[in-house]
Order: sequence, then C-alpha cells, then structure tokens
Amino acid sequence: MSAPFSTLDEFRESLANAPGADPVSLDAAAARNGQLTKPPGALGRLEEMAIWYAGWRGTARPEIAAPQVIVFAGNHGVTAQGVSAFPAEVTAQMVLNFQHGGAAINQLSRAAGAKLSVHALDLDRPTADFTQGPAMSEAEVVAALATGWEAVAENTDLLVVGEMGIGNTTAAAAIAAALYGGAAEDWVGRGTGVDDAGLATKARVVREGLGANAGREGLEVLRCLGGRELAAMVGAIARARSLSVPVILDGFICCAAAATLEAAQAGALDHALAGHASAEAAHLRLLEKLGKEAMLALGLRLGEASGGALAINILKSAIACHSGMATFAEAGVADG
Amino acid sequence: MSAPFSTLDEFRESLANAPGADPVSLDAAAARNGQLTKPPGALGRLEEMAIWYAGWRGTARPEIAAPQVIVFAGNHGVTAQGVSAFPAEVTAQMVLNFQHGGAAINQLSRAAGAKLSVHALDLDRPTADFTQGPAMSEAEVVAALATGWEAVAENTDLLVVGEMGIGNTTAAAAIAAALYGGAAEDWVGRGTGVDDAGLATKARVVREGLGANAGREGLEVLRCLGGRELAAMVGAIARARSLSVPVILDGFICCAAAATLEAAQAGALDHALAGHASAEAAHLRLLEKLGKEAMLALGLRLGEASGGALAINILKSAIACHSGMATFAEAGVADG
Repeated sequence: MSAPFSTLDEFRESLANAPGADPVSLDAAAARNGQLTKPPGALGRLEEMAIWYAGWRGTARPEIAAPQVIVFAGNHGVTAQGVSAFPAEVTAQMVLNFQHGGAAINQLSRAAGAKLSVHALDLDRPTADFTQGPAMSEAEVVAALATGWEAVAENTDLLVVGEMGIGNTTAAAAIAAALYGGAAEDWVGRGTGVDDAGLATKARVVREGLGANAGREGLEVLRCLGGRELAAMVGAIARARSLSVPVILDGFICCAAAATLEAAQAGALDHALAGHASAEAAHLRLLEKLGKEAMLALGLRLGEASGGALAINILKSAIACHSGMATFAEAGVADG
Repeated sequence: MSAPFSTLDEFRESLANAPGADPVSLDAAAARNGQLTKPPGALGRLEEMAIWYAGWRGTARPEIAAPQVIVFAGNHGVTAQGVSAFPAEVTAQMVLNFQHGGAAINQLSRAAGAKLSVHALDLDRPTADFTQGPAMSEAEVVAALATGWEAVAENTDLLVVGEMGIGNTTAAAAIAAALYGGAAEDWVGRGTGVDDAGLATKARVVREGLGANAGREGLEVLRCLGGRELAAMVGAIARARSLSVPVILDGFICCAAAATLEAAQAGALDHALAGHASAEAAHLRLLEKLGKEAMLALGLRLGEASGGALAINILKSAIACHSGMATFAEAGVADG
C-alpha cells in the first residue's frame, strides 16, 4: 500500500499508533509449549522465540509460510572522504548481481525459502557528504522511508531487511555515536576491509559528521547521518510492525538504522529479533544498547541481509517444533 | 552394508584405515571461495565450513542433497541409582513418539530437509549398572557399533546422530571424566532436569563408576561406562568417515561418545563439526577438549539429535553460497 505519511511527523505518528503483541496468544503459546514432549526448557531459546512469534501473529500455533527478504541499496556522498576499500560503482554492480541471482543473499534467501526483492534508491544521486551538513533533506528521507514501507508484501509473515551501499558502515557508525555517545573509535570498524589508515579516516569522518550535525535525535539522526537504504530499512521495519509481522534484523548497518526507530519510539523494535552478531565489533555494542541477543554468531560481515536471512531457518525450526510437536497427552509419554 | 568388524580390535583397524580429506579439493574450494562476489572473509565461518565440506566430499563445488539424521535409543542399568528425573519407561515412549512424528527431532529433521531414522537398541535389556562393573561385554558393544555402522545410508552426504536414553547424561559424564580426568562434579549437570540432590547423586554415581572401571582407555571407556545408543553413534560416525561423509555432532552425550572415537584414533573426528553448544555446562568443556567450536549456542539441552539437526540448515546455507554464488569475473563486479 501507499505509505500513510508525507512528513517525518506523520511517520512518527504511525509509530505511536502501531500494534503490540497479543497477550492472549502469548499466554496460549506458553501453555502449549509447556505440554510438548520434551523436558521443560529443553529447546532453550527456540521456545522463547516461538512464543514471541506466536504473540505477534496472534495465534498459539503459528506457521511461517511466506518469509520475505528485502535488500535496499543506496550511495553515500561521504565516500568522497575515502572511507571504503571499494569504489562507489560497486553498489550498482552488486545490485545487478542481486538481480541476476549471483550474490550471497540470493543463495541464502533460497536456502531459507524466502522471497527476495531488491530496491535500488537513486544510486546516481548519492546523499550529501555528512561532514558538510545533513545527508538528506526531509523530503529525501521521507521518500526513502516510503520506499521501504511500500516494499513489504502484505502477505509476508516474517521480514528480513538488509542493505548494500559502499561507505555505509561509516554512516552507521556516525548514527550509533550520535545516538549513544562514546568515541568515534568505539563505533567504526574495518567494514568490508579497510586498513589501519582507512580506519583512522573513518573515525575522523564520523567526528566531522557529528560536528556538522550536532544536537540531532531519533529520526533526525537518520536523516542527517544515514542514507537512503538505511531509511528504507527503517520504513520497512515500521511497516512490518503495522502488519504485526515479526522482523529479523541483520548486522551493524541494519541495527544502526533500526536504532533510530527505537530512539524515536520506545518499543518500536519489540517485534524484531537480532539475527546475528557480526564480525564488526561495534555491532555487539549496538546490540547491547538495543537489549537484543543475537541468534547466531558466525563471524559474518557482509551485510545485504545475509545474517538475517541465515537466521530465518532457525526461527522456522523453532516454529516447526512449537506448532508440530505432540503433547505429552497426545503421545502417551510420562511427564517427568 | 554389513559391518566389517566383529571385535573391538577389528573396529579399531577400520578407524586406522579410514580416508582423510582430499587436499586437491580443499585447495580448489579455497580458490573458488576467493573469487566469489563478496569481500574476502565476509561470510566468516560459512566460508571455512564450505571449504571443509568440499574437502571431505572430494569436489570444489559440492552440494548437500541427502542429509540423514539418526536417533539411537538405549536403556541404562545405572538408572537404578536414581540419576534421572524421568522413569526409564520414557525411553520406549519417546521412541514411539519419534515413530509417530511427534517429537522435536521429527520437526527439526523436516525443517532441515533430512531423512530421519530411529533405532531402538534392546530397550528391554538395559546395560549393566556401571557402578558394579563394565556396562557392556565386548560382544554387546560391538553389536551396538555395528547397528550404528549399518544405519548409515550409502547415499548420505551429511550425517547427524543423536540419542534417547533415560540416564545417559550420567554415562556421558562418566566417559568424559574417564577420558579427561577432573572431578566428577566438572562433568555432571542437570540433564533433563534433576534437582540439587539428583546432581549430587549423579556425581557419586560417576565416581563409583570410575572406581569400578579403573584404567580404561578409548573404546574400553565406551564399553565400560557407555551404553548401546552411545556405541551406535560411534559406529555411525565411523561409518560416515569410511564413506567420506561429513558429520554434525549433537550435544553432550553425542560428543562424549564421539570422544572415545577420537581417543581410540587421533583425527577420527576430523570429518565432524560441533552443531551446537548445549545448556549442559560440561558440553563446552568437552568441545574444548575436542578442539571444536560450536556452530550454534541457543541453550538447547534435549538430545535426540536436535542441536545437530538445527545446524544442518546452516551448513546447507554455507554450501549454497559457496557453490551458487557468482565470481567477480562472472558478475562484472570490481574486485576491491
């Protein structure tokens, strides 16, 4: 559907009106979980995930039949500062690779039984260099939020969002530093592979970005230091919430974007799990700030929704156990 | 095929003659990995797993098409000592539950696209109480090894083994203590849910078992302190090695059984990954001894191959990326 907002304030209003989990379904799912043929708690976090998912879907015995993975791509004016090991042209080249089925996320989406869609946002029009002022105007960030909102299929029952954008680990580090404070060095990392000098450059660029965009909060941080693909992820995560569709977050950039949503509206990420802890060290720090524990920790640092997509089968397995197992009574097994 | 051994010495001989990974395929897979459209190392452990799998399968671009999950069930004389929160009858009840499709492993195997088979080993004839002497005779342990060996399908390309056996965390703890030393308390845990008194009982029973079966090594530890389902897992893991089929290990009990194989023949578990780190604290200690890092850590403590089965989709995803992604040259993407 067409996005129901044309200003940041209207977007904020949609967040404030978003639905929560259904307490009746949460209770019913917890009760069912207690009757399944296993010792109490023996499926560990799978049990928690299944009950959580049931609460959002409004049924004690849910299924995951139509997961969707969306990759958003954008370009960043801050690449002029030399923050990436790859040239900016790679963003568009990788979008073609996604469209031709050759990237990691194509394989991971197929392995997860998920539909993949890719949205390139104005690649020929990079955001402004945030060391000189805001990366985007309000109209630009709202357009990107709307692209994300409209990209979510209405029949989706699980959403994973990710990104491609040369230079966007620097944008994510700037967002995290603006939201949570700390030194720039706490939030920058090697991204897709910069050397020590590149790392120092990223820290300097983050400091300059914070200086040029001081005193911003919540979605203003997203507008001033983010990028179109980050804003689109935010729009998609918000749309999923409006549909009561759970989300699996990807890595550092996805979580930095999502953090602006939580800053704008406390609880706005309650419908989201952290899919994985990436090799980008600041990601763990960010997950702590968000109060989320990663489902996987396999050293991925690719972005493009890869870690979130890899986690889909874990959640599917949790739901398969929860909804498919026999109870002690059904199976005639002695209950402890 | 019929097992090619009728004594423990003949089984040991089969271990000594087992094949290793193919170095040519390992090199070719590593070279392919370096050309895929992602920054070097950006898929983290997925890359290592894919190369490792390729080496065992003898091809640079493998696939996983026929994974097999096998659950072995056995009963333990040591349950007479009161080491479990569940009565021994639950072993047979759970085997029926497996056969009727109601257990966690049925759902997890289906979610992983794996064929599940279940083998109950002489449930009406528990092993001897190992606090009084050896749990099994040589003929008994060899028969259980053969059951495991013969349970592996010849077309399998990935094997997960697991177990069901009331009391078998105590057997596993005794095996680990016999192989690696340390206090009994270092190796016992709550299993499927014993209380503090039960935990103290398990430690006492392990000490008595070690006293009654002193000076054993390798497969003698398996015979004297293990059980039929543990020996069957060992036989299946060895059979997979003879077929160059990689294995994903399950939790504490599976790994304790597997450790006797490694003790009998160094490198006998080189074709095995650790699927998960269980909530049973001694499992992490055991994985350290085996030099294996778990793929998942989601707090499972169920056994019945559940953690190993949950990890199948991770390895499948790794192989899907490795064998399905485009190279930089194929995709026309600038290579850094």
